[in-house]
Amino acid sequence: MARMEPDEVDEFLSAARLAHLATVDGRGRPRVRPVWYLWRDATFWLTTRLEARRVARDLREGSAWASLSVASEERPYRAVVATGTPEVIGKDEALLRDISFRYGEERGLRWLAHAMKEPDRVVMKLAPATLVSWDYGKRD
Amino acid sequence: MARMEPDEVDEFLSAARLAHLATVDGRGRPRVRPVWYLWRDATFWLTTRLEARRVARDLREGSAWASLSVASEERPYRAVVATGTPEVIGKDEALLRDISFRYGEERGLRWLAHAMKEPDRVVMKLAPATLVSWDYGKRD
Repeated sequence: MARMEPDEVDEFLSAARLAHLATVDGRGRPRVRPVWYLWRDATFWLTTRLEARRVARDLREGSAWASLSVASEERPYRAVVATGTPEVIGKDEALLRDISFRYGEERGLRWLAHAMKEPDRVVMKLAPATLVSWDYGKRD
Repeated sequence: MARMEPDEVDEFLSAARLAHLATVDGRGRPRVRPVWYLWRDATFWLTTRLEARRVARDLREGSAWASLSVASEERPYRAVVATGTPEVIGKDEALLRDISFRYGEERGLRWLAHAMKEPDRVVMKLAPATLVSWDYGKRD
């Protein structure tokens, strides 16, 4: 099946889809959950809470690697899967705003006001070590 | 935030969404990809190819555990995350049909004809050891 071109990946990831982020826990088992993301400068910008969420614990106690999957639910199916080692870059308000506003500005504003009060809220940067894309529409 | 009731989980998973299936590879790194699924008898029925896809290799060489995430892309956000040890149950044509027809009968028929010719095509059964659900709509 066909891959996407880099500009097609950019266009695909610019839609307000969810990413499914997989980590490995301290027992070596996979864990996956849906997350918001922002795709900018060929990098995924994610957000989590260092204490209240298991993603940060997994990256400390399990493997430092993460894998991330974004797919269109409608045909023609398109998908992007990336892997890399996320880097925690602190509570950056501008990035938190840009991540959350992708999913609706009004809701994003409310979310942001709440998130800025969470002491352990952070942004994570995932620069893909690998990125694979599929476009099943190109096969048809 | 609120969980879904069991019948709400059934209703949510009966829609033709994609699941994102995470495994751990032989190096202990997570891998995730979008997959079709069928939710029946409180069990996820998935399909893969034992040789041509990495999911089976991961379950042999990495951890036997898998984790699976299904989410609504639109608000109110709902999601189900399950974990378990997938069991390979062979090339069951009726199950392959029921899985693929969920995503469109005409396309499913074409897919099924092709899949039945693949020597390593199998169905995998994932009976959740854990299943967690979220319904953000209930919080509003």
